[in-house]
Amino acid sequence: MNRILFEKSEIVDGLATFGGERAEHVLSFLHGEVGQALKTGEVDGPIGTSVIERIDGRTVTVRVSHGEPSLAPWCDLVLAPPRPRAMKRLMPQLATLGAGRIFLVGAKKVEKDFWGATLLNESEYRPLFLAGLMQAGTTAMPVVETRRNFRKFVNEELDALFPGSHRVVAHPYGEGGPRQKSEMPRGRLLLAVGPEGGWTDEEVELLESKGFERISLGPRILKTETAVVGLLVMLGARNEKMV
Amino acid sequence: MNRILFEKSEIVDGLATFGGERAEHVLSFLHGEVGQALKTGEVDGPIGTSVIERIDGRTVTVRVSHGEPSLAPWCDLVLAPPRPRAMKRLMPQLATLGAGRIFLVGAKKVEKDFWGATLLNESEYRPLFLAGLMQAGTTAMPVVETRRNFRKFVNEELDALFPGSHRVVAHPYGEGGPRQKSEMPRGRLLLAVGPEGGWTDEEVELLESKGFERISLGPRILKTETAVVGLLVMLGARNEKMV
Repeated sequence: MNRILFEKSEIVDGLATFGGERAEHVLSFLHGEVGQALKTGEVDGPIGTSVIERIDGRTVTVRVSHGEPSLAPWCDLVLAPPRPRAMKRLMPQLATLGAGRIFLVGAKKVEKDFWGATLLNESEYRPLFLAGLMQAGTTAMPVVETRRNFRKFVNEELDALFPGSHRVVAHPYGEGGPRQKSEMPRGRLLLAVGPEGGWTDEEVELLESKGFERISLGPRILKTETAVVGLLVMLGARNEKMV
Repeated sequence: MNRILFEKSEIVDGLATFGGERAEHVLSFLHGEVGQALKTGEVDGPIGTSVIERIDGRTVTVRVSHGEPSLAPWCDLVLAPPRPRAMKRLMPQLATLGAGRIFLVGAKKVEKDFWGATLLNESEYRPLFLAGLMQAGTTAMPVVETRRNFRKFVNEELDALFPGSHRVVAHPYGEGGPRQKSEMPRGRLLLAVGPEGGWTDEEVELLESKGFERISLGPRILKTETAVVGLLVMLGARNEKMV
């Protein structure tokens, strides 16, 4: 928790009052006292500093002063989701690493029962994203959408959603593709990552027909979770910039 | 489980007999039948193909034929461990991504009670590494050592252990360091990754005095787990080669 975030609705007349995990962090880990300044921010809003005005048992009230812009997302994802347990571990990291829009797509090798997972409810995944944002120190909440019909999504929606984006597809069995690009174009990236068993040939070809450039992460076969985190760190180090 | 691995002791007269998870994978996921060829390998040994000779209930016997070399580790780690739960998630990924020797060091901000964790027993972590290797399709088992006295380790042991290695330190608050290196020297890498709270200034200075080059992963603050996976994918894509 490197920056405490408040929902817009929690800030009333310049004050925010909170208990729970955030208060525990302030009181136990930061040894918070009245007058102490905390790094804070507003979900999907600016960041800044808040000063502790009152401590009432395990509840903290701060005077909020937010004005600086947060880092903005720098990439969007077309993600064939791994199993819910792995997805749950991945979600905070997606927020930390700066993903903006996340389209969960029904590639052939995605397990059918994924689509019934409770994790797909916003009430389930929002706290995971929030934790990831508070880790990173940023405020932009990722937006999740599901598209079970992968082919239809790519053919009919993708170009309108992401016009002019630079597109990359991670292909675990991509021996044929370029091993590693020494230079990547800058700008907002659209990244497609396949399921545990990989994209089918048809799926990769479809993505390539839409301008996705194939990228391989080397000869080792990675779990989706490992591949996504690795790709985002690798590409983010090159692409990220302030808005 | 992209390659089934056997311990050396499991291979007797060219045959390996196994039950448990590996057999379940062969029988349920791969729909194994007598005569079917499987991708296999020997821990810390060669890889190849084995043919199913016998299926006895949930036990499988294969005739082993190993001859090709596995991918070798390409980096070693000086790692200030995160909490045991995070370390447990990280371990399979370290094996997957090709870590060789892993020195767990007592940096200032490592939680003291980490050193009592059951995870530090080889019987606990070996199965995690094994799972990571079977995911990657490689055989080289990482070796873990602990050094609670970080300063003593760096001053007295490091140069003898890793002569001539290219050394990189990940510094989460490394605004001062180079944002991203467009070219990294090739060859075996020694990578130092700090604890959740970061290295202290003194620790980073000590590493720099030993030739570690500072690398930052950008302005977002990452968990150790995220940073290690990201670094290994990023640097591995550039460094990895067959032995």
